[in-house]
Amino acid sequence: MNTRCVMLVLALAGAGIVRAAPESVATLASPGKVLAVTLELDDGRLAYRIDRLGEPVIAPSRLGLLLRDGRFERNLALTAQSTSMRDETWEQPWGESRFVRNHYNELRATFTETTLHKRSVDVVFRLFDDGVGFRYEFPKQPQDSSGADVLIDDELTEFAIAAPAEAWWIPAGEWNRYEYLYTRTPLAEVGQAHTPLTIRTRDGLHIALHEAALVDYAAMWLRRVDGQRLKVQLAPGAEGWSVRRSAPFHTPWRTLQIDDRAGGLVESNLILNLNEPSVLGDVSWVKPAKYVGVWWELHLEDSTWATGPKHGATTANTKRYIDFAARHGFRGVLVEGWNPGWDGDWFSNGWNFDFTRATPDFDIEELAAYAKRHGVHLIGHHETACAVSHYERQLDAAFALYARLGIDQVKTGYVCDAGQIERQDTPGGPVLREWHDGQWNVRHHLRVVQAAAKHRIAINAHEPVKDTGLRRTYPNWIAREGARGMEYNAWGQPPNPPEHEANLVFTRMLAGPMDFTPGVLSLTGRGGARIESTLAKQLANYVVLYSPIQMAADLPHNYERHMDAFRFIVDVPVDWAQTRVLDGAIGDFVTVARKDRNSEDWYLGSVTDEHGRVLPVPLSFLDAGRRYVAQIYRDGDDAHWKTAPFAFAVETREVTSADTLQLRLAAGGGQAIRFTPADLAAR
Amino acid sequence: MNTRCVMLVLALAGAGIVRAAPESVATLASPGKVLAVTLELDDGRLAYRIDRLGEPVIAPSRLGLLLRDGRFERNLALTAQSTSMRDETWEQPWGESRFVRNHYNELRATFTETTLHKRSVDVVFRLFDDGVGFRYEFPKQPQDSSGADVLIDDELTEFAIAAPAEAWWIPAGEWNRYEYLYTRTPLAEVGQAHTPLTIRTRDGLHIALHEAALVDYAAMWLRRVDGQRLKVQLAPGAEGWSVRRSAPFHTPWRTLQIDDRAGGLVESNLILNLNEPSVLGDVSWVKPAKYVGVWWELHLEDSTWATGPKHGATTANTKRYIDFAARHGFRGVLVEGWNPGWDGDWFSNGWNFDFTRATPDFDIEELAAYAKRHGVHLIGHHETACAVSHYERQLDAAFALYARLGIDQVKTGYVCDAGQIERQDTPGGPVLREWHDGQWNVRHHLRVVQAAAKHRIAINAHEPVKDTGLRRTYPNWIAREGARGMEYNAWGQPPNPPEHEANLVFTRMLAGPMDFTPGVLSLTGRGGARIESTLAKQLANYVVLYSPIQMAADLPHNYERHMDAFRFIVDVPVDWAQTRVLDGAIGDFVTVARKDRNSEDWYLGSVTDEHGRVLPVPLSFLDAGRRYVAQIYRDGDDAHWKTAPFAFAVETREVTSADTLQLRLAAGGGQAIRFTPADLAAR
Repeated sequence: MNTRCVMLVLALAGAGIVRAAPESVATLASPGKVLAVTLELDDGRLAYRIDRLGEPVIAPSRLGLLLRDGRFERNLALTAQSTSMRDETWEQPWGESRFVRNHYNELRATFTETTLHKRSVDVVFRLFDDGVGFRYEFPKQPQDSSGADVLIDDELTEFAIAAPAEAWWIPAGEWNRYEYLYTRTPLAEVGQAHTPLTIRTRDGLHIALHEAALVDYAAMWLRRVDGQRLKVQLAPGAEGWSVRRSAPFHTPWRTLQIDDRAGGLVESNLILNLNEPSVLGDVSWVKPAKYVGVWWELHLEDSTWATGPKHGATTANTKRYIDFAARHGFRGVLVEGWNPGWDGDWFSNGWNFDFTRATPDFDIEELAAYAKRHGVHLIGHHETACAVSHYERQLDAAFALYARLGIDQVKTGYVCDAGQIERQDTPGGPVLREWHDGQWNVRHHLRVVQAAAKHRIAINAHEPVKDTGLRRTYPNWIAREGARGMEYNAWGQPPNPPEHEANLVFTRMLAGPMDFTPGVLSLTGRGGARIESTLAKQLANYVVLYSPIQMAADLPHNYERHMDAFRFIVDVPVDWAQTRVLDGAIGDFVTVARKDRNSEDWYLGSVTDEHGRVLPVPLSFLDAGRRYVAQIYRDGDDAHWKTAPFAFAVETREVTSADTLQLRLAAGGGQAIRFTPADLAAR
Repeated sequence: MNTRCVMLVLALAGAGIVRAAPESVATLASPGKVLAVTLELDDGRLAYRIDRLGEPVIAPSRLGLLLRDGRFERNLALTAQSTSMRDETWEQPWGESRFVRNHYNELRATFTETTLHKRSVDVVFRLFDDGVGFRYEFPKQPQDSSGADVLIDDELTEFAIAAPAEAWWIPAGEWNRYEYLYTRTPLAEVGQAHTPLTIRTRDGLHIALHEAALVDYAAMWLRRVDGQRLKVQLAPGAEGWSVRRSAPFHTPWRTLQIDDRAGGLVESNLILNLNEPSVLGDVSWVKPAKYVGVWWELHLEDSTWATGPKHGATTANTKRYIDFAARHGFRGVLVEGWNPGWDGDWFSNGWNFDFTRATPDFDIEELAAYAKRHGVHLIGHHETACAVSHYERQLDAAFALYARLGIDQVKTGYVCDAGQIERQDTPGGPVLREWHDGQWNVRHHLRVVQAAAKHRIAINAHEPVKDTGLRRTYPNWIAREGARGMEYNAWGQPPNPPEHEANLVFTRMLAGPMDFTPGVLSLTGRGGARIESTLAKQLANYVVLYSPIQMAADLPHNYERHMDAFRFIVDVPVDWAQTRVLDGAIGDFVTVARKDRNSEDWYLGSVTDEHGRVLPVPLSFLDAGRRYVAQIYRDGDDAHWKTAPFAFAVETREVTSADTLQLRLAAGGGQAIRFTPADLAAR
């Protein structure tokens, strides 16, 4: 339509002559009729809306793609549609719950351009009772004889939140990946945000926006365009477009988890259900486990990654950690700084890292054997400083070395200012450093996981691309960082505030497991910096912040000063049969109960922000009619993160499912409980 | 201090020379160390603050009284203090729970003026774990030889809420008593409000401000003075002062209920615990019961209060209601318009009411006998139109008549524009009409209750003074109105919105039982006006809105059209052994479970606002190991208050305490469930 024509139409519309209302062309409800999606065409433009129990949750919101050879969003007609349903239950090799129900209705609608390119796209919606996923499926177009790739400059998908709401979010498109404190603002004050972006309407509905199965595509950011309308912004790529794909292909799933309870977002399995089943076959070699290691002492600056008199990764120091791990039953010992490349300005010279040999003072062969004799496994470490191509060239040799030494888990690292595309001169010639979550890096991370799988190695990526549930397809992708972890408490400028964990559970953790590295019982960072937590809260974090690998991050001799509390860290499992979020409010507090996958025990963790709370918790998750011994690790009566963080008590009492415990959390505090059936507790 | 002196002090303070910080003179914690109060003197002025788990809830807030012969608030010194504790459990003759624990620590501090009058006052704080009550106790002063009354012009007590918060409130000092829709605003935008005033801080702490044991005193309003600082404003009196008392006397308790959960406010017994035990001895003659009557048809304008062709209170019409009550097991039949005084402009001529005889077409003697034969009790009605002195002159004769006829419950009414003190000319001469909640009316209402008790009659006051827990001391004060009830749905301009009940539970209902008159299953008001509710929600209100008397307000023939739903109204009890608020958010939704006092049955009610919700409810309140038959009265799959209010389903299933029900509430909907032990359900 040219400008004169548009003006004519507008004039006619003003006179009430033209302009039909948007036409609903397809609609489908979720299995329990909780959610419903409607697709609308408005003068050839495509939009969707989502209702919940008859009320709008997502107001009509645009769908479409901005391709290098023209927008795909107007002059569209519905040319086919079909619906289907699925109800299945699948088993996780490890996870928050052993069994996952996948129950949805699916709507597939084909839209074809009536003019110009005559291209088609399928829009596929999956409606669960607790959320919606949708994606674009781009076929090979009939006229596509050239075989040229499709270049995607941007995605036009929008999310217009219908009711006034607040949001918890971190900025996207800035330097530092995902390592920000979460901000709580009116939704109408969000700028450009990463996902998961978590929203609470004024009347208490919770919505989390994210994506599932981010494979060979640029990550989705959200940019507020006006009011409460958010638009997808694809992470940029160095060559100008965001995504380059050859047809046929599909986008990742754009996801909305929708629940009345904040805890419902956490219990939702929507993200996992929208990923493909495992492609790895037998993954019994992926071992959920706890670990210790040469890490916190580095952040304290008690030792260094670089070689020299304070080098942390020495044979002797590592043996101390192996001894400690063996004594207390930890499977893993992480050692950072074990390989050449750390001396000097490693941050700007990642191509100096050598992943195939150790520094002279780190006898990796002997340590691997020593560990094996003690029933402990070294954990590998690959810091790249974002010299990604350099790392990829060594990938197979590096994993082969580890596999030979019995090392079956590797922590990767991408420490750099990867928030921009910039040219870097390296010994191998100039390279363009890509965005940390652009298509290029998304492909790299999956390549690493796939290469590791060939060697039966699990990957724990730090400074990663955000999690989108790919652990279902690649169960050796065992954890990630992707948020402010414990190291910010070592640095202390500023440390993580008391509300941090209660924010993480309802934001970052919706994406998947996080290697937060909890459990610093000394509550002290570098140079005496104070950690803003009570002692009991450090224990509760093991239950609250899910990961199949959990570090006991503090120094061994600090644990020896708090053996009463350390007992819980020794006992707590990392793999679960069931998970229930009993109560919680975003950024305020959360109470989680999980059942051990390998025993009849239940564990409970509850953490609060800077405010103390008294929370009644009915123990209805326990087996009815069974008596349990509850070992309660709680804040002392006068505990307070600021004035008395070490005030702490351990109590034992017998309880049943009919009891209600009153959790009394101090300001900045928490509580951790182990429930063992009384008939089994005697062993 | 004169002006020059003040300026000198200010100058010195500016120079950092004078002005000590406020001095803490007394402090006490609650039994579980959850709450603590501190009394401070700042240059002779008295303030208090309240901390919870080490964090401020009430910032330093002024204490004091404005007496006719001078402020009592400055030049004070602490001259005595003592502490004490109490832990007792008492039994309610009827109520939400049979047993109530009263567990507090008490601080009594005597403050004496160092200059001028040398008067003393005791400030008494009672600290519970779930709230605080405090009052002023005014002794006979040593120099008080004149015996003159103490005139109180105002009270200087303040409540400075420490954390940013929202409030749910209705305006005070306007015409219409308490019959407003609740407003949700930032606390910093409250004007002048009635209590209970309910507050939620940004971080989820709930606070309700109210008073307990309002006897021979003016009601407390709250006026915002600045920021989040609220000041007590006493309801005015016609003679210029707000309160006139002879020493010794004490003020009502100023109360703060403080809980992490909204439901904790509702479960709190603080208000009752701060009232005196019953003074009535055996009150087995007070009968919690359901009733029907000539009421809704009057508001529909199907019949009239006035005599004439459409008179509702006729012998024949009343017999129809008695028959209906007998058939379905209702104890009471209310009849409004039974006595002379309704013809013409009764609103402005309340002195025309005669409470000692019936209209000619209402054969009260025969109806009382007819009711008795059918096992039903007439319920009396005394509308005063605020001609209070006129009513008081007939009080004893009126109750004597009712007592002789076996009528043991009376609904009183005070319909008038009693929001101002104004002169009225009446046949008995000019009178000043007092504020509805000034000291004068507060005394009147208690006089009525005391007079009724002598005749073993229970009082259900409409357009009352707000409830402050006096039902503990006078258990014949069986209910009150004091909020927008069902009649607003008859009038329909506008009707109560879907959020109304979810507001009431966390505001008005904190004061005590309300005679809301629920259960209009026709969902239709005057002239076809729509009630903004689903059918199932009408049932849930019987559980959610506590009252020991509950009307089945609709017309008998409307119930006959909905016998499936009506069954719940017939079954639901009105007297409870236990009450638990399982979940809820102010103005959004609430789920309540109550155990029948006279059987092993549990009942559950859940209501929502204009938004549908899916709420998981663990049934842990049921006896562990016992099977129950659940009769579920729920919204139909497509129910919606606006489009499908009658969509409704009744289901029966067996459950145990280990089950979790998913309550699916429609927009504007609800759900009601009766749980009967399976071993008893067969009877």
